[in-house]
Amino acid sequence: MDPQPLYRQLANHYLGAIKAGTLGQGERMPSVRSMMRLHDVSLSTALQTCRQLESEGWIEARPRSGYFVRQPRRVAMMPPEEPNFGLPPDPAQYVGIHARVSDFIAKGRASPIKVNLSGARAAPELYPAAQLKNAAIRALRRNPELLVRSCPPGGNAQFRAILARRALALGMVLSPDDITITHGCIEALNLALRAVTQPGDTVAVESPTFYGLLQILESLGLRALEIPAGTGSGISIEALELAMQTYGNIKAVVVVPHLQNPLGSIMTDVSKQRLVHLCEQHGVALIEDDTYSALVESEVPLNALKAWDRSGNVIYCASLHKILAPGMRLGWMVAGKWQARVAMLKYAQTRDNEEWSQIAAAEFIASTDFDRHLRRLRAALRPQRERMAEAIAAGFPLGTRMTMPQGGITLWIELPHKLSAKKVFDEALRHQILIAPGSMFSNSNRYDAFIRVSCGWRYSEEIDDAVRRLGHIVSGLAR
Amino acid sequence: MDPQPLYRQLANHYLGAIKAGTLGQGERMPSVRSMMRLHDVSLSTALQTCRQLESEGWIEARPRSGYFVRQPRRVAMMPPEEPNFGLPPDPAQYVGIHARVSDFIAKGRASPIKVNLSGARAAPELYPAAQLKNAAIRALRRNPELLVRSCPPGGNAQFRAILARRALALGMVLSPDDITITHGCIEALNLALRAVTQPGDTVAVESPTFYGLLQILESLGLRALEIPAGTGSGISIEALELAMQTYGNIKAVVVVPHLQNPLGSIMTDVSKQRLVHLCEQHGVALIEDDTYSALVESEVPLNALKAWDRSGNVIYCASLHKILAPGMRLGWMVAGKWQARVAMLKYAQTRDNEEWSQIAAAEFIASTDFDRHLRRLRAALRPQRERMAEAIAAGFPLGTRMTMPQGGITLWIELPHKLSAKKVFDEALRHQILIAPGSMFSNSNRYDAFIRVSCGWRYSEEIDDAVRRLGHIVSGLAR
Ligand SMILES: Cc1ncc(COP(=O)(O)O)c(C=O)c1O
Ligand SMILES: Cc1ncc(COP(=O)(O)O)c(C=O)c1O
Repeated sequence: MDPQPLYRQLANHYLGAIKAGTLGQGERMPSVRSMMRLHDVSLSTALQTCRQLESEGWIEARPRSGYFVRQPRRVAMMPPEEPNFGLPPDPAQYVGIHARVSDFIAKGRASPIKVNLSGARAAPELYPAAQLKNAAIRALRRNPELLVRSCPPGGNAQFRAILARRALALGMVLSPDDITITHGCIEALNLALRAVTQPGDTVAVESPTFYGLLQILESLGLRALEIPAGTGSGISIEALELAMQTYGNIKAVVVVPHLQNPLGSIMTDVSKQRLVHLCEQHGVALIEDDTYSALVESEVPLNALKAWDRSGNVIYCASLHKILAPGMRLGWMVAGKWQARVAMLKYAQTRDNEEWSQIAAAEFIASTDFDRHLRRLRAALRPQRERMAEAIAAGFPLGTRMTMPQGGITLWIELPHKLSAKKVFDEALRHQILIAPGSMFSNSNRYDAFIRVSCGWRYSEEIDDAVRRLGHIVSGLAR
Repeated sequence: MDPQPLYRQLANHYLGAIKAGTLGQGERMPSVRSMMRLHDVSLSTALQTCRQLESEGWIEARPRSGYFVRQPRRVAMMPPEEPNFGLPPDPAQYVGIHARVSDFIAKGRASPIKVNLSGARAAPELYPAAQLKNAAIRALRRNPELLVRSCPPGGNAQFRAILARRALALGMVLSPDDITITHGCIEALNLALRAVTQPGDTVAVESPTFYGLLQILESLGLRALEIPAGTGSGISIEALELAMQTYGNIKAVVVVPHLQNPLGSIMTDVSKQRLVHLCEQHGVALIEDDTYSALVESEVPLNALKAWDRSGNVIYCASLHKILAPGMRLGWMVAGKWQARVAMLKYAQTRDNEEWSQIAAAEFIASTDFDRHLRRLRAALRPQRERMAEAIAAGFPLGTRMTMPQGGITLWIELPHKLSAKKVFDEALRHQILIAPGSMFSNSNRYDAFIRVSCGWRYSEEIDDAVRRLGHIVSGLAR
């Protein structure tokens, strides 16, 4: 039996047809309906097939006309190899990741930087500065006591209502009261983890994962168990299941289902469903970090993990920080059966968030401007990512591998010959270029040969120059 | 040997003279200088003597002329008895305080409330709403990217600079870089405790103390050891020393030196100095919660505990939430030798605070408006407190005792005959009056016969009526 999932088999089938020229450039793909009929597969599998091919750059969606075979991409780089999902994971040491991360951060801050490719945020000009500013001023004018009266418990009512309304598009049916407003997704993750764990407990995370999560785990005295995740559809459910059977003490799983940081992977609906059920079965809390779903470039609607949650076992965490306003610390969470405990922890940790920013954000999000802004943001990020990818493909030596995610602000690059990214980091710093080395994204040394680069900035000559320099550095060191 | 501190002995001496009429109403007290000469005491003792008599309402300061014997106060109520400082403290159970507190909070929220006397915040009209709003609008206009660019690490530079400048008045010499901006004093206390303790550790606190602190301790898995504190000068250093000798595992002491909540006590400089040295000697971190010093009504300059800190062993925590803007969550801290660890925890817990509110607050604080506002706030709170105290003295039954703090927003009342405040709370709620029962302020049941009432509102007929009703309730139940 073919060990690959059905959608992957089907994608390979079409890939063959595209490579053989049977499906030529610009030609229309069979519709999702006809794929279902032709191959006797479900809607979900047909959709995942198309999304997979799209994420690999072979086909593209055109509004209201379906999928088409793309122009041959100038970027012909392999994605990083999928990890071996069959090996049982090692419980990683959690101690020390913070020291490692802050070491890199401190080095970056101590040096003069011309080109900063280390972040996961878009450039300020890609956010609606003027509209938000005006909404904030209106909020202050309309509520003259806003800064001197106390904040409503749980958050501003309109803001929670509009967030609940928008959550419908991700398959979540929420009441505004289910929502707790937080200081960014970071605080939401802190509260979620504090609600479901005790210090010393083990938490399963994707490997590699967002270093901020590893710092939270370390600061709370939790142990990270890293589960292999691939650039395609993210965390391996098989590996997670194996880990749950091997280690009885896993208290929570934290997953970024959409545009995982740093992999850029997007979980399939099938995986999501299995994950939700697996965690429920094993009595393990599932914490969903949905910081990036609004940046996914796809016509196919996405579902949150929480959409399959029937027992309140999923804690959904999200943020407006990366998609709306990096100068505001607005996050939110739906804590399911832990809501009372999360409310208590939030109260004891920072009290309720200030109301003014919630009112300003609520006004903007309720208008059509928000969706327009998100479309523009995605439309601006795509060519930035593509040009960055092209420059890397052109300037980095043979053997370099790279993700080509279906949206988002970063690329994940595997250097050839197991070259240590620490050396590249140091050398780049001498050229006033800042990158994020792979070892920030794991407690292990598994990603020492990776770097994450930001595509958040308008692709300028300066950036082009920096990427070329990075290519030289890698080539020089890899020799 | 008289076990009372020198300033108390001296205060008793003058009290005798006042009661005997030797020092008549309106008469001038000997100057501080002549007291030093007459009694061969230090400046500090002479000052503390005057402050003690002032806080008990016997004398009052007149700008540039010294202290004068006051009109006989209409409020002739005894303060709650000082605790027995000699008994070794019991390590209190920390489990359950949150449930107890949230039970009261939930009851309050579930009932219709006409008169809310449960808070420790002044009414919105006592804060500079218009000026802050205008400063906020200016900040947004002058920095068009404020909401869409990332926040500077540690906080806005101007804001930290002006806080450092103002700290001089409390005897602290700080560089702006010593300061970390937080989401209120609550987050500062969380970070301080997380920096210096591990779950399971014991932390010494004043008894009674601010329930928010007990909630933090419980949420962090810490044990509270309650040290007796008096309405005069707060925590008993003797009792703390005894506790440190008895329990080897005290990791930190948290103290509110100025207008302790709920006692209203103000530590003397002598006590402060002893406390700082005691903690340093025993290697116990000292966490100072200075939420209220700006509300102290006194001509005598105050010193923070941190002013005596030579080794970085004191963590200073403060807030603008109660004194400037209850709609903003602005706090700050000086973490001494734990600064790097606090910076890491702050980053992992909520990231840096939003910048806009810091810019707005910085502008206001840098102007002369801030001191004018503080003078007005104190001048408004004083008669509110006095009228509340008079109404309580008139309406509550014999045997009621009450603090008369030298500033601040609350009064602490001991009910006669050990009447349980829980009964008063429930009965008051039926009259749509909300109070804070004493059992919120301790893990023990020691304060079951106490209530805390807010004087934050303009003293209206409605409030007067509510206090009269409370008096009836207490009289009825105490019979
Ligand atoms: C996956 C993920 N979660 C959370 C965050 C932080 O979110 P916020 O800024 O809303 O606290 C980031 C930021 O890099 C992220 O990549
Ligand atoms: C002693 C004390 N510390 C801290 C706080 C809370 O401070 P903030 O609102 O700045 O978080 C309070 C509020 O009641 C308090 O009384």
